[in-house]
Amino acid sequence: MSDKIRITIWNEGHHEREHPHIREVYPTGIHQVIADGIENDDFEIRTATFYDDDDHGLGGDILDNTDVLFWWGHCIHKLVPDELVDRIQARVLDGMGLVVLHSGHHSKIFKRLMGTNANLSWREHPGGERERIWAIDPAHPIAQGVPSSILIPQSEMYGEPFDIPQPDHLVFVSWFEGGEVFRSGCCYHRGRGRIFYFGSGHEAFPIYYMPEVRQVLANAAHWCVTRHEDGVRLVNRHIEEPLETIAPQS
Amino acid sequence: MSDKIRITIWNEGHHEREHPHIREVYPTGIHQVIADGIENDDFEIRTATFYDDDDHGLGGDILDNTDVLFWWGHCIHKLVPDELVDRIQARVLDGMGLVVLHSGHHSKIFKRLMGTNANLSWREHPGGERERIWAIDPAHPIAQGVPSSILIPQSEMYGEPFDIPQPDHLVFVSWFEGGEVFRSGCCYHRGRGRIFYFGSGHEAFPIYYMPEVRQVLANAAHWCVTRHEDGVRLVNRHIEEPLETIAPQS
Amino acid sequence: MSDKIRITIWNEGHHEREHPHIREVYPTGIHQVIADGIENDDFEIRTATFYDDDDHGLGGDILDNTDVLFWWGHCIHKLVPDELVDRIQARVLDGMGLVVLHSGHHSKIFKRLMGTNANLSWREHPGGERERIWAIDPAHPIAQGVPSSILIPQSEMYGEPFDIPQPDHLVFVSWFEGGEVFRSGCCYHRGRGRIFYFGSGHEAFPIYYMPEVRQVLANAAHWCVTRHEDGVRLVNRHIEEPLETIAPQS
Amino acid sequence: MSDKIRITIWNEGHHEREHPHIREVYPTGIHQVIADGIENDDFEIRTATFYDDDDHGLGGDILDNTDVLFWWGHCIHKLVPDELVDRIQARVLDGMGLVVLHSGHHSKIFKRLMGTNANLSWREHPGGERERIWAIDPAHPIAQGVPSSILIPQSEMYGEPFDIPQPDHLVFVSWFEGGEVFRSGCCYHRGRGRIFYFGSGHEAFPIYYMPEVRQVLANAAHWCVTRHEDGVRLVNRHIEEPLETIAPQS
Repeated sequence: MSDKIRITIWNEGHHEREHPHIREVYPTGIHQVIADGIENDDFEIRTATFYDDDDHGLGGDILDNTDVLFWWGHCIHKLVPDELVDRIQARVLDGMGLVVLHSGHHSKIFKRLMGTNANLSWREHPGGERERIWAIDPAHPIAQGVPSSILIPQSEMYGEPFDIPQPDHLVFVSWFEGGEVFRSGCCYHRGRGRIFYFGSGHEAFPIYYMPEVRQVLANAAHWCVTRHEDGVRLVNRHIEEPLETIAPQS
Repeated sequence: MSDKIRITIWNEGHHEREHPHIREVYPTGIHQVIADGIENDDFEIRTATFYDDDDHGLGGDILDNTDVLFWWGHCIHKLVPDELVDRIQARVLDGMGLVVLHSGHHSKIFKRLMGTNANLSWREHPGGERERIWAIDPAHPIAQGVPSSILIPQSEMYGEPFDIPQPDHLVFVSWFEGGEVFRSGCCYHRGRGRIFYFGSGHEAFPIYYMPEVRQVLANAAHWCVTRHEDGVRLVNRHIEEPLETIAPQS
Repeated sequence: MSDKIRITIWNEGHHEREHPHIREVYPTGIHQVIADGIENDDFEIRTATFYDDDDHGLGGDILDNTDVLFWWGHCIHKLVPDELVDRIQARVLDGMGLVVLHSGHHSKIFKRLMGTNANLSWREHPGGERERIWAIDPAHPIAQGVPSSILIPQSEMYGEPFDIPQPDHLVFVSWFEGGEVFRSGCCYHRGRGRIFYFGSGHEAFPIYYMPEVRQVLANAAHWCVTRHEDGVRLVNRHIEEPLETIAPQS
Repeated sequence: MSDKIRITIWNEGHHEREHPHIREVYPTGIHQVIADGIENDDFEIRTATFYDDDDHGLGGDILDNTDVLFWWGHCIHKLVPDELVDRIQARVLDGMGLVVLHSGHHSKIFKRLMGTNANLSWREHPGGERERIWAIDPAHPIAQGVPSSILIPQSEMYGEPFDIPQPDHLVFVSWFEGGEVFRSGCCYHRGRGRIFYFGSGHEAFPIYYMPEVRQVLANAAHWCVTRHEDGVRLVNRHIEEPLETIAPQS
């Protein structure tokens, strides 16, 4: 077993394929820009896309050999097969980390793991608007090396109420120029796995090139990984015999 | 709109139908015994079962006219139509309360709302074993009027690890004669709705006749109900114009 | 015992006494303006101030006859006797509700109950700046009847990181014109008591006259009250005899 | 700066000093037995006791050079100077880890950080009673390498209700032979620091010699340590100028 953290960065790849102005921002695809951005000696990174790879990039034993899965999706959530969503969920419950990015809030897998619709408010301007991501818990591992606030010059607004379960740990809250706030960095535990949702990262803006955002994503990969020595999942377990024997009450 | 809390108690009704020794314990059905047990002037109670009622008892506008749904299921989780699970989930997210009982931990609707498999350990003896339900937060509304611990003389063991998200509020933890512990009273918020899981209540034992258990269930109905004046759900909302206009950075 | 919720609104009263421009905003004192603002048939309201009342307004059996205590303080936190802080803490742990307002974040009683310094960032302008309070959980009882966001035209900025334990329930998050965010509505449980911190309410601005803010405070009083039938506190309890007797392991 | 985790194990040392039958169980003192038990290459361990060391073992720059402090106390909580409690609290808020053991639940420092009385039920038998510590979250770092339940043949009973804030993460729940349950492994975040409370460890029984318990304590030391690169505490911070300038509303 490799000592490196095995990361698979999945991207639907639809925007870059269909829209020249997006392709201009991310000519190699969002997945590749993220891969370039978080590259370091601790990670062994593979990318996968909906259109370009067999089985949408997650067939065979790829999921079994993934410690942390990144997920960027938007337009074609509905095309992701339920069977694949089942497999991803099973892997998360068994301990695989999952980093859900931006419009992935409406992906099947995120809604599956949250149990909610993950609805929110949003506003899209051609020129975007300023966002400030505040580290409300600067002691959290995902906030290490990150400034007290990250200014994103051009962003899409995502606002409250965000229909998610209360996070196990809330790390970032965003401020938007137009007057909104948003819980933009949320940690969850489900089964044996860890999930981090990060809100910022619209396809039309070069957000994944920013060093501070890349630091957040690399930190998230480290935080999400859990390698359980025993590899045992949280199974249903029938216990035949009592562990203890209690004397009958008189 | 009625001022009373409109409660629908759903029971699959399989055990009572198929097994004489269960029918002996619950001759009128688990649903009816719970209904009798929590009856009071604040409640308007209806029951529903999988086999005996049209649309499994939850067709038409029944869910729309339910403030709190109780759910008891075990053998035929898989027969509950996905379309019904969708409708229940939608109602919970819009504010309907849900009380999930005992083996309902493996129901489709509970797993849907939790995002996990809800696996656990269990042990079943013909004679059962003693369970003590401890109110670890005696100040919680669901623990009002309940003794510091409830002794259930004959119970089925449900034990940890219980594969659920960390509860928003943990109210009860159970002790079992055979050596196990179990988070047996768990509160969750999903969307605008509230969910309470209560572990005790095996079909072979007369647990739902116990006054202390009935007090817990009546309290749970009160706690789960939320009647939002505006009736607005947590929708996806596109906001055209910014609320604030910020001067461009120089 | 009265059926009404017995509320005591405490205010240090220093600003109004010392500064004519504050007295102009709150001629009857912040405590009286809040009392007027939340008045309704469910409440029996008394006010208390540091300077004008004996024992700083909380002597005798006043605390024992208070279901919910509101606390506004700023300049003279250090003058509040430790003995009084001890008594308030004891009452909260026994079930009294506590609503801590604005600069009360640095009061001895709030820091005592949080275990932290409750530090934050702040910015004060003569003219204030705009604040928007977002109800991130519109289903919470404290957000009932409150619009999705409350615009405060002139406010003092309080910003993250706010050094508090992660709230048991986060209800409001504020946006500030100058670029910051703040967890401005935080729920806690300590012992048998409930605590709500509400950030908005600077002495120089007429915030406590706003109907939406008054709605929040009245809701908070309802949410904070817990009347435990048994009146039993969470005491240290020595148990002489085991409840169960277990057969020795062979 | 050392790369090792600098651990200081503090023990009041009263029982071992005063009671021969305790000294027989822990002839070198509880502190030394824990130190021996968790020793490994990642740790640089120092011990400190109330009686035998200057300034109760925590004077000079010892706290400043401690990454994780273990705390075992029982009889002489009241003798610990408030000034020392202030310094420990300040260090925790600045990022020092704290592992509070067994009867340390009533120590000044634990109650200070919790904001509650930390009361509980307890039962002491000369021969003790059986305790089973269940890992309810087997995926948590503190549960790694630990069996699904740890059987302690002789233990003192600590039972619910335990008057603590709801843990940020609940890792262990204990079962006691006599019929009780207890939240025996609780994680908290306060300021930039992490706190772990571990209930098992009575002075009259050789619990700290058990390999499984030692594994828990070593894991806890790893989990509690946080070394913030910037070394910045959560200070009060006055911000003179707005980060953003918003155009006046027309």
